[in-house]
Amino acid sequence: MTIRNITLNCDMGESFGAWKMGADEQVMPWIDMANIACGFHASDPHVMSRTIDLAIEHEVMIGAHPSYPDLQGFGRRAMAFSEQEISELLIYQIGALKALCESKNARLDYVKPHGALYHDMMTQPDVFRAVVDAVSCFNVPLMIMATANNQDFLDIADLYDVPLLFEAFADRTYQGNGRLMPRSEAGAVLTKEEDIINQVKQIVRYGKVTSADGFVIPMEADTLCVHGDNNEAIALIEKIRYHLNP
Amino acid sequence: MTIRNITLNCDMGESFGAWKMGADEQVMPWIDMANIACGFHASDPHVMSRTIDLAIEHEVMIGAHPSYPDLQGFGRRAMAFSEQEISELLIYQIGALKALCESKNARLDYVKPHGALYHDMMTQPDVFRAVVDAVSCFNVPLMIMATANNQDFLDIADLYDVPLLFEAFADRTYQGNGRLMPRSEAGAVLTKEEDIINQVKQIVRYGKVTSADGFVIPMEADTLCVHGDNNEAIALIEKIRYHLNP
Amino acid sequence: MTIRNITLNCDMGESFGAWKMGADEQVMPWIDMANIACGFHASDPHVMSRTIDLAIEHEVMIGAHPSYPDLQGFGRRAMAFSEQEISELLIYQIGALKALCESKNARLDYVKPHGALYHDMMTQPDVFRAVVDAVSCFNVPLMIMATANNQDFLDIADLYDVPLLFEAFADRTYQGNGRLMPRSEAGAVLTKEEDIINQVKQIVRYGKVTSADGFVIPMEADTLCVHGDNNEAIALIEKIRYHLNP
Amino acid sequence: MTIRNITLNCDMGESFGAWKMGADEQVMPWIDMANIACGFHASDPHVMSRTIDLAIEHEVMIGAHPSYPDLQGFGRRAMAFSEQEISELLIYQIGALKALCESKNARLDYVKPHGALYHDMMTQPDVFRAVVDAVSCFNVPLMIMATANNQDFLDIADLYDVPLLFEAFADRTYQGNGRLMPRSEAGAVLTKEEDIINQVKQIVRYGKVTSADGFVIPMEADTLCVHGDNNEAIALIEKIRYHLNP
Repeated sequence: MTIRNITLNCDMGESFGAWKMGADEQVMPWIDMANIACGFHASDPHVMSRTIDLAIEHEVMIGAHPSYPDLQGFGRRAMAFSEQEISELLIYQIGALKALCESKNARLDYVKPHGALYHDMMTQPDVFRAVVDAVSCFNVPLMIMATANNQDFLDIADLYDVPLLFEAFADRTYQGNGRLMPRSEAGAVLTKEEDIINQVKQIVRYGKVTSADGFVIPMEADTLCVHGDNNEAIALIEKIRYHLNP
Repeated sequence: MTIRNITLNCDMGESFGAWKMGADEQVMPWIDMANIACGFHASDPHVMSRTIDLAIEHEVMIGAHPSYPDLQGFGRRAMAFSEQEISELLIYQIGALKALCESKNARLDYVKPHGALYHDMMTQPDVFRAVVDAVSCFNVPLMIMATANNQDFLDIADLYDVPLLFEAFADRTYQGNGRLMPRSEAGAVLTKEEDIINQVKQIVRYGKVTSADGFVIPMEADTLCVHGDNNEAIALIEKIRYHLNP
Repeated sequence: MTIRNITLNCDMGESFGAWKMGADEQVMPWIDMANIACGFHASDPHVMSRTIDLAIEHEVMIGAHPSYPDLQGFGRRAMAFSEQEISELLIYQIGALKALCESKNARLDYVKPHGALYHDMMTQPDVFRAVVDAVSCFNVPLMIMATANNQDFLDIADLYDVPLLFEAFADRTYQGNGRLMPRSEAGAVLTKEEDIINQVKQIVRYGKVTSADGFVIPMEADTLCVHGDNNEAIALIEKIRYHLNP
Repeated sequence: MTIRNITLNCDMGESFGAWKMGADEQVMPWIDMANIACGFHASDPHVMSRTIDLAIEHEVMIGAHPSYPDLQGFGRRAMAFSEQEISELLIYQIGALKALCESKNARLDYVKPHGALYHDMMTQPDVFRAVVDAVSCFNVPLMIMATANNQDFLDIADLYDVPLLFEAFADRTYQGNGRLMPRSEAGAVLTKEEDIINQVKQIVRYGKVTSADGFVIPMEADTLCVHGDNNEAIALIEKIRYHLNP
């Protein structure tokens, strides 16, 4: 049995102007990769700058977390864009974050799309291609959702020479097809700590996950997505951390 | 008598979503430097991308034209930001445009702030330092307004190793102190073609300009700012072009 | 043969900040009803105020033209909102325009949703109900698209005591089911003046329209939607005007 | 000695989209007047609607809390608008909130401008006149800051038939001229509960306040502004409440 070398990634820099969201200062010490919002669904240049500072201080990798332009909807609403427009709005946001990184002698390490754009990328091959095309300009990997069919995405990304990072979810229930149970369904989110830790162990030790309907499905992941919204969530991150590097 | 090698620069890419502004296609062939809006006072990722394409096609230098965040006010309203915030919002916008350029194998050539930010930079040394600090991250020159006291600005910019480009205005009246006559004053804008061409000639041939109150003041400029809002304006650009390269 | 008393309505007040759209001053004298944008897809409080002034000057009825919140996309992109949220954003926009009208001793005469919201209202009964619910707070009619099945919409609107106004399109091709040919299809827009005038005559005189595939379908309309984007469009409005009131 | 009948007012409905601000549910039971943000510096139609519901439930008076359009800066930055534009943006926002109130059979009770607009109104007579002009369309009182010179403001408001409500601040230090100590100064905010309660008592019982430099100055107030940002603040509101209605 090999313990996989799996990192923890977390959405960060989601404050906006006077509004604070997330406990970035408390979470940053426990994670490996910070997905930093780029001003289209959350964040602004000042929040981005402070979040990069925090990532540098804790030696955390910096990822751009671009989105559809929708502050009021937090990037969670699907919006109709052409593939070209999606590439353009991604390059805009990633470039903005990259420049802020470089102004601090830090570097952009990867890209992970947010919200509805993330969802559309996983379900619409044309959108995925637009995303890969944009990311290919930056010579960094793209983080997407691990599914039972990672190879389908690798085939496309290889055409653009874009490495992929696959993320699994510590606290979300999987369906038999390897996709996440929609949040609208009962049981979509694991709430018992034991269940979450068990899912993490299964992913880390065996590269598998047990779906809601009882199937053991492959789940080859490079990183686990965690959330840092409150004290309970942060305590859970610490426990997950322990199981990754016991 | 030396004919100075003076370029023409023009604000471009000022459309936004469904709203069109400027005759970019008609103007681009006649100018040397395109100041491209970066999405905070005008433009959006798609408009920026199309404007870069147009600049590439006509071998025009590409400048970032960043602004205070104020779409409704077109960046013309002063807004209170700390110097750090000004640097951050500049790096964000310049980085966004630079990434779009690089995605097309073009490069960012310079930066020229817009509107109220331009004005604040010329009148508040702290704002000028914040701008220079931001531009220093990109290894490109900063374009500012030529005045009778260019050296004051060079002294500061030299501390950050940022080259300056000085621009004069073909169609604006100058005051005796070398600053522009405010638009609120009568006669602030030259409207007679003959007056404009004469001012251009004086700047190009002698590095001087005659102020509204009759003083001949030094006006060492690297570039002339022109406007391309309508057919008349474009015809004028063509005439100015002729006097630069007869 | 009865000549129906059909009005002309036109989208107005679509400028935003420094961006001008439409020739409102030229169009206003020729129309009966001005659909005024409410700041979510176009317009701002100042543009709304000036447009109301213009409508008052020409004794044109004033309609609120609310939209999904999407300036960059001009309200043309579908966005996911709950029905409650749709009602809330409609009441917000209609209330804002109504207050501006009342500040000038004018009154709000009707409501016509814009863009993707208009489309969703015509195709999703839940959205239509949310719209009717919002409009019922203002004691004014709601303008919707005339189809071959006006009664379906009347049945719902009656439950809320909201009168409906049905609009037909002078320059759009109809399908056999009484819906508009999608703009993505060839021939969706009538371009020959003769065809447009003939369609107008058929609607006005007979309450019918001939679909693209040759069926004569009922088209009971209270008002015709016209466009005022350019000189040609305005000339056409004048001709349509003549056929309504010869 | 007369105990003045003084109300408590508090800024409410300052959440925006996914961002929560303030503990509206905890604060509403303790206050008399809810200043509800109108979407320009905070809030959105859905937040406004929920906040109105909460005010209705607790029988709290509803005030419109309009602002300059500046979400990122939370309306705290001065912005250059003409007086006409200020009136227009106020009527827009107040009208939007009023319509949401009326859709729930509630009524708009008053208007209190927010942030930089509030400050500008208190220091620039032209801005004050623009505000009064806008509020006069709604037949409700305008809430402004109580100063040692309330009469100056009453003289102007009377010309527009707009009643004024004067508010004092429980936890802010006053200067000898009756204006608030700027937040940039040390001691601008009272932090000791005893000091705050004493200031409240002095305002309520004697219509006076002791300035930072030791002068007892008149402070005729109709209402006290309190804050509900955290548990400590809410506990303080309860104590102030006790001293108003012992």
